Formats: sequence, structure tokens, C-alpha cells
Amino acid sequence: MINYRAPLEDLDFLFHDVMKMQENFLQVREGEVVTPDVVTSIFMEAGKFCESELSPIYQTGDLGCVWQDGNVTTPEGFREAYSAFIAAGWTSLSGDPAYGGQGLPSSIMIAINEMLAGANWAWSMYPGLSEGAIATLEAHGSAEQKEEYLHKLISGRWSGTMCLTESHCGTDLAQIKTRAEPVDDGSYLVTGTKIYISAGDHDLTENIVHIVLAKLPNSPKGTKGISLFLIPKFLPTANGTAGVRNNVNCGSIEKKMGIHGSATCVLHFDGAKGFLVGNPHEGMSAMFTYMNVARIGTAAQGVAAAELSYQTAAAYAKDRLAMRSISGIKNIDGPADPIIVHPDVRRMLLTQRAIAEGGRAMVVYASQFADVYRAGITEVSRMEAESRLGFCTPILKGFLTEQGFMCASLGVQVFGGHGYVKEWGAEQILRDSRIAMLYEGTTGIQALDLIGRKVLLDEFSQLKVFTREILAFCAEFLPWKRNQYTFKMFRKILVLARLTIRWRYLAIRIGLRAKRDADYVGAASVDFLMYSGYVYMAYMWSKMSLEAHKKLSLCQGNRQFLQAKLHTSDFFFARVLPMADSHSRSLMACTGSLMNMPESSF
Amino acid sequence: MINYRAPLEDLDFLFHDVMKMQENFLQVREGEVVTPDVVTSIFMEAGKFCESELSPIYQTGDLGCVWQDGNVTTPEGFREAYSAFIAAGWTSLSGDPAYGGQGLPSSIMIAINEMLAGANWAWSMYPGLSEGAIATLEAHGSAEQKEEYLHKLISGRWSGTMCLTESHCGTDLAQIKTRAEPVDDGSYLVTGTKIYISAGDHDLTENIVHIVLAKLPNSPKGTKGISLFLIPKFLPTANGTAGVRNNVNCGSIEKKMGIHGSATCVLHFDGAKGFLVGNPHEGMSAMFTYMNVARIGTAAQGVAAAELSYQTAAAYAKDRLAMRSISGIKNIDGPADPIIVHPDVRRMLLTQRAIAEGGRAMVVYASQFADVYRAGITEVSRMEAESRLGFCTPILKGFLTEQGFMCASLGVQVFGGHGYVKEWGAEQILRDSRIAMLYEGTTGIQALDLIGRKVLLDEFSQLKVFTREILAFCAEFLPWKRNQYTFKMFRKILVLARLTIRWRYLAIRIGLRAKRDADYVGAASVDFLMYSGYVYMAYMWSKMSLEAHKKLSLCQGNRQFLQAKLHTSDFFFARVLPMADSHSRSLMACTGSLMNMPESSF
Repeated sequence: MINYRAPLEDLDFLFHDVMKMQENFLQVREGEVVTPDVVTSIFMEAGKFCESELSPIYQTGDLGCVWQDGNVTTPEGFREAYSAFIAAGWTSLSGDPAYGGQGLPSSIMIAINEMLAGANWAWSMYPGLSEGAIATLEAHGSAEQKEEYLHKLISGRWSGTMCLTESHCGTDLAQIKTRAEPVDDGSYLVTGTKIYISAGDHDLTENIVHIVLAKLPNSPKGTKGISLFLIPKFLPTANGTAGVRNNVNCGSIEKKMGIHGSATCVLHFDGAKGFLVGNPHEGMSAMFTYMNVARIGTAAQGVAAAELSYQTAAAYAKDRLAMRSISGIKNIDGPADPIIVHPDVRRMLLTQRAIAEGGRAMVVYASQFADVYRAGITEVSRMEAESRLGFCTPILKGFLTEQGFMCASLGVQVFGGHGYVKEWGAEQILRDSRIAMLYEGTTGIQALDLIGRKVLLDEFSQLKVFTREILAFCAEFLPWKRNQYTFKMFRKILVLARLTIRWRYLAIRIGLRAKRDADYVGAASVDFLMYSGYVYMAYMWSKMSLEAHKKLSLCQGNRQFLQAKLHTSDFFFARVLPMADSHSRSLMACTGSLMNMPESSF
Repeated sequence: MINYRAPLEDLDFLFHDVMKMQENFLQVREGEVVTPDVVTSIFMEAGKFCESELSPIYQTGDLGCVWQDGNVTTPEGFREAYSAFIAAGWTSLSGDPAYGGQGLPSSIMIAINEMLAGANWAWSMYPGLSEGAIATLEAHGSAEQKEEYLHKLISGRWSGTMCLTESHCGTDLAQIKTRAEPVDDGSYLVTGTKIYISAGDHDLTENIVHIVLAKLPNSPKGTKGISLFLIPKFLPTANGTAGVRNNVNCGSIEKKMGIHGSATCVLHFDGAKGFLVGNPHEGMSAMFTYMNVARIGTAAQGVAAAELSYQTAAAYAKDRLAMRSISGIKNIDGPADPIIVHPDVRRMLLTQRAIAEGGRAMVVYASQFADVYRAGITEVSRMEAESRLGFCTPILKGFLTEQGFMCASLGVQVFGGHGYVKEWGAEQILRDSRIAMLYEGTTGIQALDLIGRKVLLDEFSQLKVFTREILAFCAEFLPWKRNQYTFKMFRKILVLARLTIRWRYLAIRIGLRAKRDADYVGAASVDFLMYSGYVYMAYMWSKMSLEAHKKLSLCQGNRQFLQAKLHTSDFFFARVLPMADSHSRSLMACTGSLMNMPESSF
């Protein structure tokens, strides 16, 4: 049975010790400063909610949503959990105080989102999608729209969706067919069918606010002709309640591999009344606001999958008795030893743990840029943070969702045959986590965003900022000071420095080759993304190790926790990180190995 | 929609050109020689059956079996397909002619098994399990047992199962609790509960013959006290029909991640009448006969997953339009280019293809040893073949099931969001293929079998035989003859030779380290298995490339097919094989990185 435990100690360590987020918080949104004590207690409360309200309905939620007569009913317990969630004010945590939000830094919400997804991925989709709609309206809505909708969305009484995909196009939004016709009152009638709309219909809230991509008449071709519309399920009345039903209907819900408790809807807009958000034809750039929020959230889901599958598998491995340890019997009174004594079981568990903790650090590291980007005091600091966040985002999304799925598969493996049957829940984590590599832009799309937009078009500047930071970190260790750090720590730093220098080299090489071979960028993209992910994670493990060493030498903190950090870090460098070199070698291969085969031979 | 196409051209190429199986066939079972023409036509007929009877009920079969009142009903169409299957004599193909079999070499059946699994994994489990029971009875049954059961099993009118696992033990069979009490008539009353019994109950055959592991009274502790029993669902009458119902009942079927059409049963034996197979207390060694058959079959399932997911994804990639090729528009009249123009989509497809074709070659290569082992003319040749097969088996099973699952996941990825919904079938392949890494011994168990039993206890002798063969193959290319092969081919051979020499080095290093650190074997095992798999596959790709070069230079064969072989081979060496080095580096890590963390810290 799955029994999620919130990683509170790890979050405290990351926020207060490793990343020193407190220093960052001082630069964001004026007003009350968020002290470490407050952050810790927020995490504690959120963790309690996840453990006691969401985790118990994770496996039962796999029975799925029911669609009948155009309405979706969520699984048992989802409504009650959602009511408790909004009653406790969780949806308003990082919302704009002008609209009833608590104005706390985004990084806190991002960390909580990982916990929500860890405890109940499917359930967490409902508030998760609202966050995207809120971010879009905060950034691009008119003052009236904000006033009319943001209070409800931030309070969680209404929820939001993002309607992009149509059956013939997901990635390539230039092809969308949904049309918006202007009418006299300044609104639009929107017609078209959207698919794969998470939280597109459900029974959790009074109203649902759809943010929809559609084309105006005579709009330019391609993505430059896309506009953004707000289309509520019920049109708000003058006093702000949900009024007349709009012409948007849920035609069916998808039968999917996993996240069955999350309703993935086909939505028909049949001349639905909609309102333009932002300027005409600027829908795509507005959509990127949402995308960035969503992609970091998805990266956190990858971490959540690694964490939950780790917890589930580790508990089983301590309990299940099979075979004897090769290095001598460990459980003399039992019929066999617990399987955690076997090195290969430990290899799987430590891989999951190294990814979960390393991934969490990656997300927290990037979320400090999200804080400044969203609420930094100066325009310069906001723009700088936006660039840094933009560089990290595709790495986080692509790398961590791939790793999260891989960890979920290891989780199944630890269970042996029991991993394949529904009873234990391990297979559900695997099925659920598979979606993360697909939605909000596939791994391939993240990889192109990284190497194309964030490295080459950016002329390597953000790559330089990041690698310079890592190399400066490494330089502190040179020369090695015997009395300060272990030799093991020193060796880790050498590896990190080598991989970082190579990261730059690989990027430059791709840039040079791309000049004479346009397909080279695409050919190298995913390997480059994965390589980037490993270096980024190695940096995080180095930072965490260093902090653990420092605290241990000062006899501060929880000794067992800090020792475990060092052990996991050792494992990461010894047995996970070597994968980086394979990606580095694969991406050096010539494009011909991919492009020479004629299409007819496939 | 999934529409399986049997890989007939590839099988012909492997059997006749690359492996020259004809030469091998001459060494097996006296009597009629199987000519290449016959082999080709058998494959063609089997392929037709798979394409027309099994593939159409693959996706509908996912609705699953129904268990009611102790009886299992298979999905719609399964009964009809099975009747057609036995009517055409497919179950008897490689069976012993003394009991109605056709006595064809096992390699042919192994190749057909891949097709059956590719067309309909769940359905193929029913005849697949029978093969295990047949092999066990052929090797260990008494003359009376063979006479009484083999005719029915080989004809397919009855089917078989293998009952090993109990809820508290799968891998560690020493812990089984099922008991067999002798009774006066020489039979036994067997009592206990077995779980995860594939084909444990169903509606396809008149009778089901269970091969059951149980312990006799006062048997020695551990696996040395396990005996093997034959327990029919219906006790045969004197004239050989299914008679009185035995006390074995299906208590339920498992709710699983995939292979829903395959009934995975809980079987209760309540004093069921059973018959001892072989000698008392020698059940475990007898079980290895079955295990070896089953493990190669499972490896073929890994290949099947790669093949089916490749076919499905490639068809989609040629059809789906999204974005434009970076190197220039390819589909001028369409709204976008087919996604197969994108290098990263090709990377995924070619990975699947390289694994499917390379894996198939690995299985066919090993199946020649299965032929000789089973029906070789001299005892010496049989023993030698057994050793060679024994060395290959864990590599095939462990490596190819891992790779098959990875390919199925790439298949989902090519579909984007459509990969996650049931409609297209890609997610079903992923769910189905996940079982292969678990049953018939997990990857970890294969890895221990390889490094422990097949390398170290064998004192490297089979590793030497295999690597010597590879190095002799490589040596033919030295010095490079410009007029004979391309330089690319020469470079592949150099890589193969390097990896092969390192393979030996790694094994010796593990052996040396194991002497002072018992846990090192387990710590290195899975990485060693994966490394071995890559070298084995690289050898196959080298052999296939060489043959393709030869035929092309002689203007023989299908030019497009042979060119595609070379392109896929180029891809394999450039972009798949670099992974081998990561495993080689990971396995060199010290055991401490796995074992230092105390159990309480997990």
C-alpha cells in the first residue's frame, strides 16, 4: 500500500542551508519578509495535508473519473479533499494579494506542488491547471478580467484550464482550426474542438475558466495568427456568481494509460462566448507565460515520481524476505534476509533516491529565479531572472520527467512480480509518471528549446552564466585543503569541473556544425539535454555534499540525514553520472547515422 | 490502430545468410533435413497466422479475462484463434515425433514465438506456457507420463502451466510451503496456494496440466527439498480423455498493469491428486529445463516489443504532420511535414529498429545452440551446446527485456500525447512489455546467474569461448583490405574488438575483487549484464553488416533491405553502443557506494 511521506527535512535543508533562499526572498515583492520559520511551518502543514488527505485516495483514484451526460464525476474523496484544500487557503498561497492571494514566493508553491503530485498526481492536476490560468491572466488579462476572475481562481472556488491541443495538432499549434468571430458587445463566439484538456470538466468547483487558443478572422498564417480567449463554463453574473451556461461541452474523457483520476476532456466550443485576453494575434507569446509555469510544475512531477516510487520500494525492500546476503546472513532468525541487503536492490533504490533528491535541488535552485522573475524589485533583476529561469526550464522538464519515469520503473522492479499487479501501487506510479514526458512539450521539444532558443539563439550567454557559476564554485576547492574537505569531495569537484568545461565545448561544437548541417541541431538535441541535466544535477549534488560536510564538521543538524546525503552523493557520482559521457559521445555522431535512411525504408 | 507485420525478410536473412542455420540443422535429430525453402514457407505461414488471426484481437484483448465462479473466460476471439492455431498444427512444430510432434528444430519455434508475441503477447502466453510443461515432461517425465500427457500437450488439445511462485516467495523458492503427502496408489495429495500462474485457468483447452513445485514430508531444507509434481485439472480417464475434476481451483485472477488477456491465476491446491515427476527432491534442477526454455521465450518477447512498437511508431511518424524540417520543407503541399523528417524522431525509431533487429539476431544466434542441445547427434555436441546456450540465456533474457521495454516507451514518445491514450495501442505495448523484466527471473536474477554461475563458477571458460569467436571474427579484417570492405565497416570491427577485450577484462576484475569483497559480484552484476548485452549485440550487427556488404557487392538480394541494414548498423554503432562504456564505468565503482548507507537511513 502506498503511504506518502512529505520530504520535509530535505526541503528545509535545501531552502535554508543549500540555497539560502532567505537571501533571495529579501529581493522579492515588498512587504512582510518570509522567515525560515514560516517556510518550515508552511511546508509542514502542506505535508500534513498531502499525507493525510491526498495519499489515502491515490490508489482508489485510479478507478478513474466517470463521464455521463456531458458531466464528469471525479473519483471518491476528490471533492472532499479539494474542499479541504481551498478551505485551508492553499490555492491562494502565491497569488497576487490584490486579488486575495497571500503573495508568498513562487518557490514555496513549486515545492508544495511536488508534494501534491507525490501524494496524488491525478488530484493535483486540478489545482495545477488553475495555476497556469492564473499566471496567464495575471500577466495578460485586462484590469476588468482580473477583477472578475482572479479572486475566484485564487480562492480556488473556480478552476482554470488551458486549451491548446486539437486532434490534428499538439506541438505544431500553427495548424489549429478553432475560430473566434467578434460580436457586437466586444466579445467573441468561439467554435472548435479541443482535446486532451486536463481538468476540462469536473465536479470540484462552481465554475471552470478555459483559456483557449483560437484564430480571429483574416488572421496571419501560422503561430503569429493565434489569439488567446477566456471562455467560462458559466458566464459570471453581475454579482460575480456562476450564471448562464456557456456553449462549451465535454464530449468525452480519454481512456488513458494512467492519471485516471484526472479528467482529460474533449471540449466542444459551439459558438461559445469568449473574451480576448491580451492583444489580437499575440496568443502564442502569452502562452509562454503559462508554459514556463507548467513546465516547472511538470519537472516537479518527475521528482515526485522518483520520490514516491523510492519511498514505496524502500519500504518493501526492508520488509520482503528473499535469499541470503552473499556477504553473510543478516537476518539470522528469519527464513531469509530482507532484500535491501542485496547490492542490486540498493543500486535501484539509491538511483531513485539520487534522482529524487538531486532533482528536488534542481527545481529549488531554479525556483529562486522564478521568485525574482515574478516579483523582483527591479526590472533588471526580473529580466535577468527570466533568462536564467528560461535556460533551466527545458532541462528541468525534459531531464527530470525522463528520470522520474525511469525511477518509477525501478520501483516496479524492486517489487518483482508484485510490482506488476495493481494491489501494491508501484505500477500505478509508472503509468502515471509516463505522461510527464509528453504533456507541456515532449522531451524532444524541450531539447530543441534548450539547444535552439536557449543556447544558440542566445549566443551561449546563459550557458556561460551557468557554467561560470559552476566553475567559480569548483575553483574554491583549488588547491585541495586537506583539513577542510575529504579527498572524495575534492574528486567530485574535479569531475564536475571536467563535465562543465565539456558542456561548453559540446554546445560550441553543435553551433559550429549546425552552420553547415541544419539537421545536426535536432540530431544532437536530446543527448545534449540529457547531458545538461546530468551536469546540472552533479552541481546540485556537489553543493549539497559541501553543505553536509560543513554541517557535520560543525556538529550541526541531523547527523544521520547529513551522512545519508553524502552516501547518496557518493552513489550519484560513482554510478549515475557516468551516463553523461554516453550522451556526450552519442551526440558527436554524424547526422548521416540518422538521416541517410530513406523514408521508404522505415 | 495496431497492425502487425511479420519480419519475414529479416528472419530469412538471419537464418539463411547470417547464421547459416542450414549447416546447423544437419547436426540435429536424424531424419528429414529441413531445407531453407521449408523454413521460409513455415515462417510465411506462421506470419500469415499472426497478421490475420492474432493482430486483430490484440487491442480488444486488453479488455481482459473474466473470472467468475472459479472459471476464467478469455477475451473475445481468443478461443477461435487458439482452435485455428492447433488445427494448423503449430503447437506440435518442434515436439517429439514419438508423441505426435513434427520434430522441427527449436530455433524455428523460437523465431515463431517472437512473431506470436509481437502479434498478440497476451494470447501467446497460453501456448507459450505449454511449451515449458512439454519440455519438462520430455526431459524428466516417466515413460507412462509421457505417453499419457505429451500427445495431448503437443497437439494443443490440453495445455500446461508452471506453478512455482507463492505469495511470500518468487525468486527464493527455498521458502515454498506447498506440501505433497504420498498416498497408497503411488500418487500424492498436494496442498498449497500458488500465485501468478499464467494460463492457470482458461477456456481454450479441454484440460490443463499443472507442473507444480512442492515439498515432500521430511524433505531437506531449502531448494534441495523441492520436488516436481504433475497435477491435471481433470484426471485423465483410461481412454485418455479429461475425466474427474481434481481439487485444484482458480481463486481469482490478478489485476495487472498489462497483458490483460493472459489470465494470471491464484491456484488453490486442496489435496489435489498429483504425480511425482523425476526423482524426489530434484525438482529444482528439473525446473531449470523449463527455465531455460522460458527465458529464451521471454527474450524473444523483448524483441517482439521492440519490433511492434517500432512498426506502430514508424507508421505514425510517416503519417502525422507537424512542424517543418529544419533542413528545408519536405512536404510542400501539406500544412506541415511528416514527423519522420525530424532527426529526433528518427533517433527514436532507429533505436527501436536497431534493438529489434539486433535482438532478433541475438536470439537466432543462441537458438542454434538450443537446436543442438535438444537434438544434437552426439552427447559431446549436446553438452557443448548446453554450455553455450546457458551462457547466452541470461544475457538474452535480461538485456533484451530491458531494451524491449525502453523501445516500447520510445514508441509512446513518437506518438506524443496520442501515445498516452488507449486508442492507438502504443501505451498497451508499453504496459505489456513491462512484465518481461520480472517474470522468469528478474533482470537482477539474470545478472547474478550470468556473472556468478556462468562466468565465475565456470572459470571464464564460456566467456572465453564466446570472446574468442568474436575476436577471430574481427581478426579476419586485419589488415584492412580497401577493396573488400568500407572503412566504416573496419571501424565497427575495431570498436567491437575493443569492447570484447574489455569484456574479458571486466569479468576478471570482478572475479579478483570478489575474492576480498563478496558484495562486489552483486554490485557489478546488472551493469556487467548490460555491458555483455551491448557487446553481444555489436557482434550481431557486425555479422549482419558484413553479410549485407557481401551481398550488395555481389548484387544479390533486396538492395533496399540490405542498405537499410547498413544504415541501422551505422546508427547502432554511433548512437546506441556508446552506452556500453557507461555500464563499464559504473561497474568499476567501489561497493561502498552501495553498501555504506545503513538500512535505517533508507
